[in-house]
Amino acid sequence: MLIVQKYGGTSVGSIERIRAVASRVKKTADKGHSVVVVVSAMAGETDKLINLANQVAQNPDEREMDMLLSSGERVSAALMAMALRSLGVKAMSFTGRQVGILTDTAHTKARIEKVSAERVKKALSEGVVPVVAGFQGITETSDVTTLGRGGSDLTAVAIAAAIKADICEIYTDVDGVYTTDPNVVPEARKLDKISYDEMLELASLGAKVLQSRSVEFAKKYEVPVVVRSSFSDNPGTFVVKEDEEMEKVVVSGVAYDKNQVKITIIGVPDRPGIAARLFNSIAEANIVVDMIVQNISSDGKSADISFTVPKTDGKKAMKLAEGIARDLGAKGVDLRDDISKVSIIGVGMKSHSGVAAKMFETLAEHNINIMMISTSEIKVSCVIDVKYTELAVRVLHDVFGLGGQSRSRRTKSSKQGKKK
Amino acid sequence: MLIVQKYGGTSVGSIERIRAVASRVKKTADKGHSVVVVVSAMAGETDKLINLANQVAQNPDEREMDMLLSSGERVSAALMAMALRSLGVKAMSFTGRQVGILTDTAHTKARIEKVSAERVKKALSEGVVPVVAGFQGITETSDVTTLGRGGSDLTAVAIAAAIKADICEIYTDVDGVYTTDPNVVPEARKLDKISYDEMLELASLGAKVLQSRSVEFAKKYEVPVVVRSSFSDNPGTFVVKEDEEMEKVVVSGVAYDKNQVKITIIGVPDRPGIAARLFNSIAEANIVVDMIVQNISSDGKSADISFTVPKTDGKKAMKLAEGIARDLGAKGVDLRDDISKVSIIGVGMKSHSGVAAKMFETLAEHNINIMMISTSEIKVSCVIDVKYTELAVRVLHDVFGLGGQSRSRRTKSSKQGKKK
Repeated sequence: MLIVQKYGGTSVGSIERIRAVASRVKKTADKGHSVVVVVSAMAGETDKLINLANQVAQNPDEREMDMLLSSGERVSAALMAMALRSLGVKAMSFTGRQVGILTDTAHTKARIEKVSAERVKKALSEGVVPVVAGFQGITETSDVTTLGRGGSDLTAVAIAAAIKADICEIYTDVDGVYTTDPNVVPEARKLDKISYDEMLELASLGAKVLQSRSVEFAKKYEVPVVVRSSFSDNPGTFVVKEDEEMEKVVVSGVAYDKNQVKITIIGVPDRPGIAARLFNSIAEANIVVDMIVQNISSDGKSADISFTVPKTDGKKAMKLAEGIARDLGAKGVDLRDDISKVSIIGVGMKSHSGVAAKMFETLAEHNINIMMISTSEIKVSCVIDVKYTELAVRVLHDVFGLGGQSRSRRTKSSKQGKKK
Repeated sequence: MLIVQKYGGTSVGSIERIRAVASRVKKTADKGHSVVVVVSAMAGETDKLINLANQVAQNPDEREMDMLLSSGERVSAALMAMALRSLGVKAMSFTGRQVGILTDTAHTKARIEKVSAERVKKALSEGVVPVVAGFQGITETSDVTTLGRGGSDLTAVAIAAAIKADICEIYTDVDGVYTTDPNVVPEARKLDKISYDEMLELASLGAKVLQSRSVEFAKKYEVPVVVRSSFSDNPGTFVVKEDEEMEKVVVSGVAYDKNQVKITIIGVPDRPGIAARLFNSIAEANIVVDMIVQNISSDGKSADISFTVPKTDGKKAMKLAEGIARDLGAKGVDLRDDISKVSIIGVGMKSHSGVAAKMFETLAEHNINIMMISTSEIKVSCVIDVKYTELAVRVLHDVFGLGGQSRSRRTKSSKQGKKK
């Protein structure tokens, strides 16, 4: 088998851990498999570098940020290659550039445009284990870019796609994908498998186990992914194409995300094109808007526009919103950072109805006010006051029957009426 | 003026120091000069990385070592660019690869083959201060190399040569080049200027202020260099082509080097070609041999061959010597690491005689036994027992009149007879 193994920051967080991972890689190679290793920076290193940058400058330049942060993965890749060699495994480290990960120029969250993986293929053909520094790529003009938080997952999946690997194993510090955060709901259950789409919603909704862009990529190129722990031999959770069995389950998981802020422009004169202008200028600043809600006020002459963005982009988005609000003669701009988004996800929603209603009902029963709602074919998300996050997750996990042992036990919702 | 400024590890050793250096660069730029900045890794970082490598593997692979160590300069270059930008100076960091520093494949001590400096020139033409990560280059096959200890000096000089800079300023934690180590001889005096050749001897003899290969490079391309402190505004020491004034001074400085070991192959059968074979195999291992002495034994049938190599290469060289000794049927191999090399340097030696004799005489007066001697046109070196190092340096500094204020006071040696 041709296997890509990606090890996250905690998995390579110390010399002992690096040695342990090297043994695991050797074990796989000794079984006759061809292995490609992708590593993140040692746990804590990236934060240490960010901290240095923030001490040196108020708003560190993003190109320089990428130059800075990409060094962390170089270090762990080199150390991992050394550790493998000291076990007698032929290994060689490569940077993102050296394996031909070409990206656009959106520094700090660049998108992969092409992966040649020439040197990975060459190394494999020579019986060498390539150890690739994750998280990084290079632009056409040869500048260093990074792929955003969790970007090493994307590196692994992209390389797996480029070399047509049989499986891409994402090693982390948890056993796999859970029905929800076990820290919040102790009865949370590990899923044996999950569809790309469900994983995508879980990932983008803040479940943290797998970077969402890596899931998109895996889906697009049909790369079989498994999320498992580098600290155990448990089988983990397979992320694969959806199958019939999966569709029988209405809700597969409950996710939450406390890393967003909600910005509201109040009293916008109700003219066409205003939303376009606002969100164009936000998109130009490379900020990803998640939810958008527009309410026409009671007099019908003005509207409130609310949207959510990642906390890290909050200030930048607020500044843009303020500028536009001034231009439009809006009444004001409001930012709330005490919010969270709670979501239920499941491919089964496509064929089951009443799921959204049940979610709203359940939240209402516990006096949790819903500020914003957003839906897709396979998920329903609600923005609520952050203080109710854990309560909401627990009651939703319970009402959709996600606890316990068996996967089939959980389908409880009605099969009549419209889905949401 | 077009100025290259290189800042060493202690000069960028903390956030405060990086900020201070950024201010200095800004001051230079504000005067209308074009500035290129070259930085080393933050003090201690390289040793930290070496330590990690040694923990992970017994003999870390050299290619991997370069991948690992080159990360330190990336970090300081990015931080310096950020610090400059936060002062309103347009700045951009570049890796060795990005500025086109092409080297051979001798990992951990690669030699520069070509410097394009295209991006440096482009940045300068756009009014941007390029901040170059020192110490690193790239091979033809796109692998990362490093230029050996002190390699950032070489980066600075090589870029200065490529862009025809008016001056290359090497900033360090000392005021300039001294007649000897002020820690050993408190009366040591700072030199206002020194010739390339003298500096070369001083550098390669372990004076530490400037990497010797960078001086060779500066001499070859006639790059004017000044060594000065980043902690003060003192003018420093200019390293330039030799002039008449310099030749009046017989001895300019006394250097010492405790970082060598002496290996002796005892009882080598006296056949032609043996020395060639020994030193070829050492050269192939990329080890630089410094001094070589061969003594024919009293019976005329066998010889002892002694040579010195850097401490870091001691084990490797010893292993090679042992192999060859076995093949040749030599009596044995001996390694001494309790030695040091003490040298006197001065372009004036060319036209003054009796200098070497005076050195030997002085050492003998103090009962310091000389194990090996090596001479060049402008220096005399003696290998002695390491415990006499400081004594030897002090008495030589004194006998050649290097203390005090005036440069001319020191010529005391006889003008008759042969030079050495």
